[in-house]
Amino acid sequence: MMKTTGSPDLVERLLHELGPGAVLTGEDVAARSCDPFMHVPPRSTALLRPRSTAEVSSILEQCHRAGQSIVVHGGCTGVAGGALADESELVLSLERMNHIIEIDPLGATMTVEAGVPIEEVQRAAAAHDLFYPVDLGSKGSATVGGTIATNAGGNRVIRWGMTRQNVLGLEVVLADGTILDLQNHFLKNNTGYDLKHLFIGSEGTLGIVCKAVLRLVPLPTTQHVALLSLGSFADVLELLGRARALQQLSAFEVMWQDYYAIVSQDPTRRIVAPDAAFYVLIEAMGYDEAGDASAFSALLEPALEDGLLIDAVPAGSARQVEDIWRVREGSEMLVREMWPFISFDVSVDIRTADPFVTAVRAALGETFGVYRSVAFGHLGDSNIHIGVHIGPDTRRREREVEQCVYDVLQEFGGALTAEHGIGTAKRDFLPQHVSPAALRTMRQVRQALDADRLINGNVLF
Amino acid sequence: MMKTTGSPDLVERLLHELGPGAVLTGEDVAARSCDPFMHVPPRSTALLRPRSTAEVSSILEQCHRAGQSIVVHGGCTGVAGGALADESELVLSLERMNHIIEIDPLGATMTVEAGVPIEEVQRAAAAHDLFYPVDLGSKGSATVGGTIATNAGGNRVIRWGMTRQNVLGLEVVLADGTILDLQNHFLKNNTGYDLKHLFIGSEGTLGIVCKAVLRLVPLPTTQHVALLSLGSFADVLELLGRARALQQLSAFEVMWQDYYAIVSQDPTRRIVAPDAAFYVLIEAMGYDEAGDASAFSALLEPALEDGLLIDAVPAGSARQVEDIWRVREGSEMLVREMWPFISFDVSVDIRTADPFVTAVRAALGETFGVYRSVAFGHLGDSNIHIGVHIGPDTRRREREVEQCVYDVLQEFGGALTAEHGIGTAKRDFLPQHVSPAALRTMRQVRQALDADRLINGNVLF
Repeated sequence: MMKTTGSPDLVERLLHELGPGAVLTGEDVAARSCDPFMHVPPRSTALLRPRSTAEVSSILEQCHRAGQSIVVHGGCTGVAGGALADESELVLSLERMNHIIEIDPLGATMTVEAGVPIEEVQRAAAAHDLFYPVDLGSKGSATVGGTIATNAGGNRVIRWGMTRQNVLGLEVVLADGTILDLQNHFLKNNTGYDLKHLFIGSEGTLGIVCKAVLRLVPLPTTQHVALLSLGSFADVLELLGRARALQQLSAFEVMWQDYYAIVSQDPTRRIVAPDAAFYVLIEAMGYDEAGDASAFSALLEPALEDGLLIDAVPAGSARQVEDIWRVREGSEMLVREMWPFISFDVSVDIRTADPFVTAVRAALGETFGVYRSVAFGHLGDSNIHIGVHIGPDTRRREREVEQCVYDVLQEFGGALTAEHGIGTAKRDFLPQHVSPAALRTMRQVRQALDADRLINGNVLF
Repeated sequence: MMKTTGSPDLVERLLHELGPGAVLTGEDVAARSCDPFMHVPPRSTALLRPRSTAEVSSILEQCHRAGQSIVVHGGCTGVAGGALADESELVLSLERMNHIIEIDPLGATMTVEAGVPIEEVQRAAAAHDLFYPVDLGSKGSATVGGTIATNAGGNRVIRWGMTRQNVLGLEVVLADGTILDLQNHFLKNNTGYDLKHLFIGSEGTLGIVCKAVLRLVPLPTTQHVALLSLGSFADVLELLGRARALQQLSAFEVMWQDYYAIVSQDPTRRIVAPDAAFYVLIEAMGYDEAGDASAFSALLEPALEDGLLIDAVPAGSARQVEDIWRVREGSEMLVREMWPFISFDVSVDIRTADPFVTAVRAALGETFGVYRSVAFGHLGDSNIHIGVHIGPDTRRREREVEQCVYDVLQEFGGALTAEHGIGTAKRDFLPQHVSPAALRTMRQVRQALDADRLINGNVLF
């Protein structure tokens, strides 16, 4: 692995070539943060802000010649430390490549530069009665490029898939500055290897996404949301089984009691009584006013009648839709009540999600004695988030807490990260969770595309 | 590129190791065909029929050591010559790896060996009220492994995507015999590079798929189908625009007049008058008896009333559903009326599909004088199929016909193959249709995984 200090000559040359405003240094770099929760500035001597793919290519070509490492910045909303930059690395931010290039209403595609925030994509799509279904809490800052690099998930994966399923084409710059035009607009294109899949979800280690062709869907015209309480995990599974046949199902979020107990301390979020074992946020989006309403009721009413649900509060207004979603997005309540905590983002077999959570708690109790935890997540997609606090030592003993949880995860055959990615934070755990042959193959692919590990060199493995 | 003749020693050793029935030679090989339409036997000295991933691994490891090339056979229904095998190559067929391993009804996944035919997957899924949405005319023979290697499309891509979107995990054997366990069951898993996407659609050049975890969806309980005739391409586009908001839309197939003129010579397929410019087969599948019926009518009735449709014949029975689908799957009528013909499988911008077809015809007329052609396809997915006959010389002048069509395609920015793949048949045209940088990157990836090009060495590039 080649590592060199950011060469002043190179930075000087890039400043000259790209013009003022394109290269930040000193205080302007220190004011930036690589982390969405804490102020963690890049340790880089410079942050580069190209305005075009050609400029990205020129920067990478020069860095490649100079053996200069690069860390790529999108919206810096990732929680796996993928944006951290050390002294030897320059930061390349795509923030000025933030234009929507084209919308094709009939083909239902949008071509955008990588720096466009997700919320802006959604807004531009809505103006044409179209919808970009990737939806995250951080959508105001998270960018197209960042969500593609990390294959972001979010709330509506159960219906529309991860970011990967919503990307048709890319323009990528490789580590040596080569521009790779993969701007496919077609749903069907088997013309050779579909190289875009190399770059989606590879966390910026194989190339820098500069443009994307996104796949849009018709803008839903109906949205039904309800908060439900249930007495057992078996009931949650039964409800999920029934809900799968609801064509309009767009979210199935489950919250364990410990999570709701904390979040419902905010009275605006206490929508049902906080003494049930499980809570489910269910959402259905569709295109048929009468039909969608009756399909939603046809799921919930029998479930209430036959005792599957303890309580069900459907939203009666846009405001109530928002309130119910705020129950699921209650991270600031968690921060207030149990900071510091370690977060986990795993996938497990849906059938064993509750046994898994129980086993994690048992292991935490055995290892650390007193602890607090909360569990919640996108259960319909197998994805569980767990937050763990073991007292004032939490941060210092982070690795021990992680090892404890990941050992249980491995017994359950779960996945180390469902949607947040490996970044730098989970890098040390990767070899425990993929086979040696898979890790070797990943290394071979990286070697083929960036032999010197010049882009995001500290990420993944 | 290393090429050696199938070593008798190696075949002898494999026969000894794998047992009788595992290695076919002589007449048993000559009786096989690599092509679904004509009898094109492999020229190989032997055809290997392993029963397990371990046996595939052992075969590949020994072939790798001996520098022995391999061609992989699934159902041999591909139309791009990907299964052709020459004297220097052994055939490895996955036909005896044809077991369904597990069905998880709640997680909606099925784990199968690569040799299971698609129709059998559908049947097994249906027994659990589940559905595997990849659907092809050749589903009785086409296998899971073959459809994954080629990223097969088919009739319902508009709703459920290509094969890629329906595969969660794989078990793959690499060219050197390494077994790569990528048997993910989760909708969300960002644990390192998602290596399965390397193998899906790479036409068997990077590894041999031995098992797959398939994603299932709830079995639709309603199916509405209609055959429509329309007067202009603008009307077809208008209808497609309206149909996109139909949540249940599962197929939108368009047929140009020349196609329907031939196919409707079969009286059982003459469902509407054959004098309209365009024909559309529209299908909606759903889960709500009353709602789906009314949503389908709510699309068609206004379209009839405001003159968008000339005629509309909805299927009133399962038999009529089948009859209407037989209009779209009329290839034996094409064979009867215009054999020999050259087939094309391209994607073009939906908005320019008819101008493209018109330009192809103009170019054919200019180059070849008299010719016949038919156009049809999955227009909702941008995918057009064209068949071209230029007289008794058609086969001999195949390359000229192809060059003529592909030159027009390139002007329109279309894709060389939408769903059939490159195989050996379109290999020479690939460099014209992807950028030099993309082709170089494909070569780097192949070099990284199969440096000696031992598997499917004549395929793709």
